[in-house]
Amino acid sequence: MVLRYRFFGVFGNRGRKLSHYTPPGYSQVISTEEVKKFCIQCLQKVGAQLKHATALSDVLVAGDYRGHYSHGLNRLEMYVQDIQKGVCSTDLEPTIVKETVSTALVDGKNVLGPVVGNFSMETAIKKANETGIAFVAAFGSNHFGIAGWYSLMALQQGLIGLAFTNTSPLVFPTRARRLAVGTNPITLAAPGKVPEDHFVLDMATSAVALGKIEMSRRRGIEIPKGWGADTDGKTSVDPNLVMTKGGLMPLGGEEENSGYKGYGLGMLVEILCGIIADAAFGPNIRRWLSTDKPANLGQSFLAIDPKAFAPGFEQRLSEYVNIMRNLPPVDNQKPVIVPGDFEREHMTECDELGGIPYPPVLIESLNRLADQLKVDKMKIIKSL
Amino acid sequence: MVLRYRFFGVFGNRGRKLSHYTPPGYSQVISTEEVKKFCIQCLQKVGAQLKHATALSDVLVAGDYRGHYSHGLNRLEMYVQDIQKGVCSTDLEPTIVKETVSTALVDGKNVLGPVVGNFSMETAIKKANETGIAFVAAFGSNHFGIAGWYSLMALQQGLIGLAFTNTSPLVFPTRARRLAVGTNPITLAAPGKVPEDHFVLDMATSAVALGKIEMSRRRGIEIPKGWGADTDGKTSVDPNLVMTKGGLMPLGGEEENSGYKGYGLGMLVEILCGIIADAAFGPNIRRWLSTDKPANLGQSFLAIDPKAFAPGFEQRLSEYVNIMRNLPPVDNQKPVIVPGDFEREHMTECDELGGIPYPPVLIESLNRLADQLKVDKMKIIKSL
Repeated sequence: MVLRYRFFGVFGNRGRKLSHYTPPGYSQVISTEEVKKFCIQCLQKVGAQLKHATALSDVLVAGDYRGHYSHGLNRLEMYVQDIQKGVCSTDLEPTIVKETVSTALVDGKNVLGPVVGNFSMETAIKKANETGIAFVAAFGSNHFGIAGWYSLMALQQGLIGLAFTNTSPLVFPTRARRLAVGTNPITLAAPGKVPEDHFVLDMATSAVALGKIEMSRRRGIEIPKGWGADTDGKTSVDPNLVMTKGGLMPLGGEEENSGYKGYGLGMLVEILCGIIADAAFGPNIRRWLSTDKPANLGQSFLAIDPKAFAPGFEQRLSEYVNIMRNLPPVDNQKPVIVPGDFEREHMTECDELGGIPYPPVLIESLNRLADQLKVDKMKIIKSL
Repeated sequence: MVLRYRFFGVFGNRGRKLSHYTPPGYSQVISTEEVKKFCIQCLQKVGAQLKHATALSDVLVAGDYRGHYSHGLNRLEMYVQDIQKGVCSTDLEPTIVKETVSTALVDGKNVLGPVVGNFSMETAIKKANETGIAFVAAFGSNHFGIAGWYSLMALQQGLIGLAFTNTSPLVFPTRARRLAVGTNPITLAAPGKVPEDHFVLDMATSAVALGKIEMSRRRGIEIPKGWGADTDGKTSVDPNLVMTKGGLMPLGGEEENSGYKGYGLGMLVEILCGIIADAAFGPNIRRWLSTDKPANLGQSFLAIDPKAFAPGFEQRLSEYVNIMRNLPPVDNQKPVIVPGDFEREHMTECDELGGIPYPPVLIESLNRLADQLKVDKMKIIKSL
């Protein structure tokens, strides 16, 4: 079973107590080192080489540590299955098939997504350091974890990073009654003067993640209009119907609420990924969790050197995010925050706990995986 | 008076009769040549040089012709006032102050926005033809009309074009009760194999445009939740309250419906405009329609040559948009469309009419302007 939790969006409640960042029921704390070691062992056991297993494990742990639980350890089994079933390569390396001083087209060679992503963003960073900007597009890739991992790679070099990926069709285009757009995320990371001012936007172009709908289903409560639709593409407040027979709506929700903009953004991402790189695209991408053929995802990576533009970028960005944070809030209990704040709060919470909190059901599932693969189970540091 | 109409979004009802693309009450048809001549005369009369007046007039006419009436002739008076009051320069030209093979920083010299935009996108196109991609950021600019004008410039050269601009604060950041984000548009244009397959996304990152709220106010009907908020930043269904004392909400609407993503996208645009170029930014930008100081807007322009990546881009894009158009619709009366289709339908409608339809109230307002400036009034071809 692959869990697809995502309990809340980019924002938590800054300044509140711990449980507001950690989802309810996430009670089993495991150190990041232990999680990483477990991921690497599982992936190596099914045939991944150490370097590739490490690349993927780093991204999965980063997903959980940043509070994006929908893209972390809960997906390990999906990657393991891709390798086990042979729809993902283990013995190749991505290569540049075409390039200019500021661009590259990468053949991902169907290896694990983070290997393709790291190679592509490293290439973009190198070129952007020379010419001020670089764009790298890859075909033949696989799921690469949180998109923010790659924009953060650029940020760590003092650059602005953007990354995009197409994904399996999970979203109804506006007016359509067939799923045909992925959750196609957009990420931009940009450096502030101090780390706490770094801007890190990492968002799906769907209204919400599947995990938010799953949570409502478990609780037996209706979902707001605009999150999902039934099998006919009509908005539905029944989380069960949306999960089992329907799908997600684009950011904005219904057409009346500008859902066509979210749909347009999903297509924008697809153009910069599948179309430009000649990967699978749109409804032609294999169904979510299927392993009947290679994913052949398209991904793209943009790095921009702010030093090629007006001096003082980092200072201005810090000023900007702090202007936003200090705006008077509608509700004093919910201060205004900027993209990146939620993740920082979650990481602080993990640091205080000494590890990442997970739900028991996920641990049980991964213990079964450990038994199957004959690797050591993860050690729980503490139960909350 | 500056009218701010925007009667519908990117989408109309394809295949329906004429009145579905032309807003109700738009009954006075004027030829595009006549509109352009009028704009040029008014702008020259207050001191614009012919080349600058022509550049702005082209963009305004294109806005109306494409059905984006919020960014066309209805804004002429705003530009005239900027020149009359001396907050916009007439005798300078934009210049490159810093560049690499793939980037440029442009000083807009406070001339009319389209002059800055054209210069910047021409620079980006030239560089992208050399290196595969180019990014140009400008400070010291003014309102540049529809953002899509600039992405289309790249498309006309076989490139993918993107453009961004910051704007006066009209949008509440998620959780804030002060307007601090502009409608900060994102546009991407990309060439299909035939013109009718060109993808042209041109969208504000706010939930809706002010004009949509204005229309509900005139009709005396409530607006949907998520379009706007009252003076305290709380969602409101009262269009009068939103227009007079409140403001717009970001794409997505309330936090529950992922309005924080629209807010994040608005900040993304600001980072690529005001922050990177060192222009005014965020709530520091002068208030909408004020002429107390130069706008000092920031804008950016990205051109990507698809030929630097996988061959066959245009073919694949055509295939993609047609897959989307042929998806089974929820409502047979409303076929699935893609960004660019609405605008094409609107232009066809104008061609059939022999010109662009405008509301009488706008014509009356511009007739008064003609009297003031002592230029010829526009000739009406026909009244519908």
